[in-house]
Amino acid sequence: MSHANPHLIDVYLAECRDLTLAELRRVVETHAGHTGALHELVLDYPLRDAKALRPALCIASCRALGGPLEGVLPSAAILELYHNAFLLHDDVEDDSENRRGREALHREYGAPIAINVGDAMLALALEPLLENMRLVGLGKAIRILQVVARMARESTEGQALELDWIRHGRWDLRASDYVRMVYKKTSWYTFVAPVLIGGIVAGATARQLVALRKFAALLGIAFQIQDDVLNLTGEGDRYGKEIAGDLWEGKRTLILLHAMHGASPAEQERARAILAKPRPRSHDGATSPSLRARLAERLETLTDAGEISAHARGELAHLLATDAPEEKTTGDIAWLRALVERSGANEYARGVARDYAFKAERAFGEVDGLLPSSHRDFLTGLVRFVTMRDR
Amino acid sequence: MSHANPHLIDVYLAECRDLTLAELRRVVETHAGHTGALHELVLDYPLRDAKALRPALCIASCRALGGPLEGVLPSAAILELYHNAFLLHDDVEDDSENRRGREALHREYGAPIAINVGDAMLALALEPLLENMRLVGLGKAIRILQVVARMARESTEGQALELDWIRHGRWDLRASDYVRMVYKKTSWYTFVAPVLIGGIVAGATARQLVALRKFAALLGIAFQIQDDVLNLTGEGDRYGKEIAGDLWEGKRTLILLHAMHGASPAEQERARAILAKPRPRSHDGATSPSLRARLAERLETLTDAGEISAHARGELAHLLATDAPEEKTTGDIAWLRALVERSGANEYARGVARDYAFKAERAFGEVDGLLPSSHRDFLTGLVRFVTMRDR
Repeated sequence: MSHANPHLIDVYLAECRDLTLAELRRVVETHAGHTGALHELVLDYPLRDAKALRPALCIASCRALGGPLEGVLPSAAILELYHNAFLLHDDVEDDSENRRGREALHREYGAPIAINVGDAMLALALEPLLENMRLVGLGKAIRILQVVARMARESTEGQALELDWIRHGRWDLRASDYVRMVYKKTSWYTFVAPVLIGGIVAGATARQLVALRKFAALLGIAFQIQDDVLNLTGEGDRYGKEIAGDLWEGKRTLILLHAMHGASPAEQERARAILAKPRPRSHDGATSPSLRARLAERLETLTDAGEISAHARGELAHLLATDAPEEKTTGDIAWLRALVERSGANEYARGVARDYAFKAERAFGEVDGLLPSSHRDFLTGLVRFVTMRDR
Repeated sequence: MSHANPHLIDVYLAECRDLTLAELRRVVETHAGHTGALHELVLDYPLRDAKALRPALCIASCRALGGPLEGVLPSAAILELYHNAFLLHDDVEDDSENRRGREALHREYGAPIAINVGDAMLALALEPLLENMRLVGLGKAIRILQVVARMARESTEGQALELDWIRHGRWDLRASDYVRMVYKKTSWYTFVAPVLIGGIVAGATARQLVALRKFAALLGIAFQIQDDVLNLTGEGDRYGKEIAGDLWEGKRTLILLHAMHGASPAEQERARAILAKPRPRSHDGATSPSLRARLAERLETLTDAGEISAHARGELAHLLATDAPEEKTTGDIAWLRALVERSGANEYARGVARDYAFKAERAFGEVDGLLPSSHRDFLTGLVRFVTMRDR
């Protein structure tokens, strides 16, 4: 494994993030300058504390191959914009509570505004990519557009696979199904597209692009597995997302698949029953568990006090129970986490992530013509960073 | 006004729709062929019964200027794909019940899948627009991409304006605010982009494009005002959408703005109070009585039957009332519809729509070089169709 100083990774990320955000502000001010409220909301997620990994990967790949910063910066900023648009829609889809240590946008502004802000970010990405023609020339600009088009398609296909498995209660899944889903959902837009675009701007050869792409695809899978581990084991504040959100959402992670395979039939049955239940919805006064719980409790008390007949209590309790789909509880999630813990699935997943990172490192060695530089060091160091990170 | 036979409009629309859907199937099969479930969902809304107005406008503009059908068809299909992606996201945002006479997609599959299918449709639009380079040449393909980029941005900005007004309870709006919002939200993607793209493929002059654009912008405003009227007065089955959905959603239509201006202070206050309330959420059973309503009803019955004491009834009713945000009721909406009826706002709006259609007709007369053809007749006849339509 690499011997790069982890601190250098953070410094490189921070530098690229500053450059990217300045560029992103410029893009938004140029193209969305006339709609004040939307303008601010489009920048909300990007300006929150984040690593800005995708633009850094794009910039490093370009510069390690001798390409210019100015040529790659607009594309790097657009990758960050796409990423944040996906995060916004993901948060609505998952009804996540937090993002980057703050309340998810739809919880403050409502799902309608959050969905539209995401669409606006996707729309805003197109004009700068067309302006790229003046900056990097027609041929490269078109190839970058082709990568972005493929990236957008792969991401939604990966997301569709995951949502489809949840909807149909699918558990007949192998590790290879998970890897295919993650390749589409995560690798493509987090690693493959950034390095390809960086390479294209730098004028990389077909051979260099193939090697970069292999490196990125493998590292993306390692990254997502590690992300799944952090989701289950991380500290909320540091990780910036909801702990065990994947379990609340019933996601088919490698960890959960492994834990299910190793569980007893009775445990499997209980786990499936829990995971099939919806999570409590945030915006729903009428069916929120708190109202239900409070009503049920009050029914008991008033019946005990002789204020309600046993018959009336039965009727009302029935109405409460039949209306609502039973929802996941914190007890359910604690039980699932204990099951995962016992199964050793986190350690297993960490090991698989390390294997993918190792393969990525070997693939990186096949990228010829990289110039010795802080950019190359960043890419090398990233392999270790991905599997050692805690956020 | 035009003397075109309304029947000819329907025939032209139907022919273009068949061509568009065949092309759309080809696009989806080529680019989304590997993800079965997603593939079907992407075609769900487009295959429902609809006019397919946008592709027809695009095809007619191209052919009326002597352009080829083959050159314009992929772009026309992509416009239909964009439109349906927006509809999908709109339906989630508004929590609409129906779309084109059937259940809205998110009501069957849930909001997460519906949001992602919309994103997938937006993603799928890009690759065919890049392939356009081979079909219509580089220059035209890039100009079409620029129009689509602007279109996507204008649409989300218009949507943002509307959602922002609702969120902030804004009523200090003039007709000109409404027109600006509608120009962005509706005119751009329903009329301006289709005719510009048709013109570009046909090799239209700058002068022709300016005139076409003016025609389209004006006709788009007429179209949206008429759409608002139909939303309030149409027959559900024929219109294919939820009747008075705009009132449930609190949209600032020209009709509602006019009715508010003409109302007494007390009526204004009541209308604002109603419109500020959220609509009942679908998973709460928006069409069937909500859990809260059923519990309240049962409480009454059981109290009357002596099964519950007055004290217990009071406590439980209080608990039900305090937990929930008060929601719009069917009675509220009926009151608003009566207010609108009394104010004559529907007739007023119909008149404004006719004025815009008349201006559009004049603008159309300024488009020089149109060849006498069924395509030109369609565009002429459309002016009357837009303000006379009942669906």
